[in-house]
Amino acid sequence: MSPAYTMGIIRVITQEQAQVDAHGQLIEQWIPGVKTLSRCIPDQPEGVHDAGTKRAAAPKVAALAQELEQAGVDGIIVSCADDPGVLEARAAVRIPVVGAGESTASAAARFNGPVGVLGITPEAPPAFDRILGPQLLANVVPAGVKSTLDLQTPEGRASALKSVESLSAQGAQAIALACTGFATIGLAPELERAAGIPVLDAVQCEACTLLLELLRTRATAFGEPLRRPE
Amino acid sequence: MSPAYTMGIIRVITQEQAQVDAHGQLIEQWIPGVKTLSRCIPDQPEGVHDAGTKRAAAPKVAALAQELEQAGVDGIIVSCADDPGVLEARAAVRIPVVGAGESTASAAARFNGPVGVLGITPEAPPAFDRILGPQLLANVVPAGVKSTLDLQTPEGRASALKSVESLSAQGAQAIALACTGFATIGLAPELERAAGIPVLDAVQCEACTLLLELLRTRATAFGEPLRRPE
Repeated sequence: MSPAYTMGIIRVITQEQAQVDAHGQLIEQWIPGVKTLSRCIPDQPEGVHDAGTKRAAAPKVAALAQELEQAGVDGIIVSCADDPGVLEARAAVRIPVVGAGESTASAAARFNGPVGVLGITPEAPPAFDRILGPQLLANVVPAGVKSTLDLQTPEGRASALKSVESLSAQGAQAIALACTGFATIGLAPELERAAGIPVLDAVQCEACTLLLELLRTRATAFGEPLRRPE
Repeated sequence: MSPAYTMGIIRVITQEQAQVDAHGQLIEQWIPGVKTLSRCIPDQPEGVHDAGTKRAAAPKVAALAQELEQAGVDGIIVSCADDPGVLEARAAVRIPVVGAGESTASAAARFNGPVGVLGITPEAPPAFDRILGPQLLANVVPAGVKSTLDLQTPEGRASALKSVESLSAQGAQAIALACTGFATIGLAPELERAAGIPVLDAVQCEACTLLLELLRTRATAFGEPLRRPE
């Protein structure tokens, strides 16, 4: 049986293909009928971690989006909470493009009450401020964590657990994970059990958001070109 | 093959079972591996259309949620943009409960720019104000439309098309349909082609939102009871 949907996944850190495939493999496990095709941008072994690396990534993300569109995917996920190159990719292809950040922030906006953000950068990625506004309670980086690799140590996990407990104690009604690296190591369920409130995994959010975009655009069937939102 | 997920669908208008099943049938067509089980509240042949009928519906929605949970569904959709009884149902069961209104409003919040709301009530349903805040451009009711039945007439459709064209001309970057009755008659694609901007179907939004909730809560596997957001 051919898959109902093929999702193209863009990773913004240069890695071996087995690692590049990690998010797509999770999505295939989670959603029946979905296949994925994953690519990573070249020459950024340290990924996107500041304004300069984000700027450098954007045209590479757009180029990969075109490559994935030509390979026949139905839609594209930029699997990074900073949404690098999402606007550029959207302008470069005719299929839907969603970012992890905008997907996670909008999923969190549904919860009735303050939302805590747990990430690895001192400021929440831009989509969280834009979409949550005053609903954003606080952005927290686990103590001692500077990259997703730090989350994989016992100290990093313990620190992340303390952070979500603190956000919950401050009155958060839900927690949004502002780094797809939490999904790579499958930490959300453990964090959710510790926090006692919903903890949103960015890879789950981006997958369901693209699914919604695919349902919508298939229904419309591009009878005429859509104006793209900015 | 047994379905990956069974979604319970609560309709808040008293109808024959063939009509009650309409939204669930759409969801089964759209999302591979999903089955649905649909029920409607009793004794409200005119559905939910004001504060009194919403209040009357809430305990019935909660009772149906318990009945569907006992029947073995994995999660529940209250398929009405006013989200009647969503909080009451959430308090009554241990499985996820999502409403059409909160699902559609949060999906619309992702778009970068003003959101127009097209519905059948003079005020947008509460989730749209709460989630979109200043991003809500305007709530419009098609001229001459007082119920979803009016949308099925040639005049009603023409009036809905004019409304979305007007919202688009006012600067909306996306339009949220604040009535699941638009899905029943499959109007979103036609509206989207007319408006030239994304038009979000509430039944598509509620289905993808519940799917995300099912992914999340299955992962957490209820190791301990979740505190429910209000």
